[in-house]
Amino acid sequence: MSIFTKIINREIPSYKIAENEHFFAFLDINPNAKGHTLVVPKREENKLFDLSKEEYLGLMDFSYRVAKAIEKAVECKRVGMSVIGLEVPHVHVHLIPINEMADMQFQKKVTLTTEEFQQVAFTIATHFE
Amino acid sequence: MSIFTKIINREIPSYKIAENEHFFAFLDINPNAKGHTLVVPKREENKLFDLSKEEYLGLMDFSYRVAKAIEKAVECKRVGMSVIGLEVPHVHVHLIPINEMADMQFQKKVTLTTEEFQQVAFTIATHFE
Repeated sequence: MSIFTKIINREIPSYKIAENEHFFAFLDINPNAKGHTLVVPKREENKLFDLSKEEYLGLMDFSYRVAKAIEKAVECKRVGMSVIGLEVPHVHVHLIPINEMADMQFQKKVTLTTEEFQQVAFTIATHFE
Repeated sequence: MSIFTKIINREIPSYKIAENEHFFAFLDINPNAKGHTLVVPKREENKLFDLSKEEYLGLMDFSYRVAKAIEKAVECKRVGMSVIGLEVPHVHVHLIPINEMADMQFQKKVTLTTEEFQQVAFTIATHFE
């Protein structure tokens, strides 16, 4: 069972953003930038392009809605998207509020307090439609 | 007019992978890895999440088909996806055959000969469905 499945099942706590029957969005606990969010399918699959076209487009649709909420909630030039997945074998879409290239390179990280995580999760969730 | 629109209009040559009425895929000329491909909407738009939901999902659908072709054509652990767009203000999806995290960080670049570009473009195009 992946760490993301444990998060979806509430065995591991997370700063949740949004959820529906098939997808779950929550804050990355080791963010590139404040508001860095992960969107995952509830069904475990390792690779993005091993998802069926239907499930893939469902994930992308849900990610679009989350990204729109991030853009409303967090000051940034735009929201970047990245799917890599070499570390956790459970598809996850990174949605990152970016201002410079370094925000997309997964080298520079930011440290947030619990209150900052809660506040940004709440603000993004409030804007989710 | 963006550099990508000039590529779509054949004012600038490219190693084309695939094309339909709305989208165009071609090799990145400064690739992170061999087979690194860009997918763009023919209509110029700066930011991914400023596309309408319909156009965005069309772009993602087309990118899925290109990614499947890359996975068949190029030896790699998987195809990574990234949309950043801080440099060229015309939406572009990076599809990158990756083996390690460095392949997604846009710092390490590979040099290919014209023949290598042509060969990999042809092989991916052949697998495009």
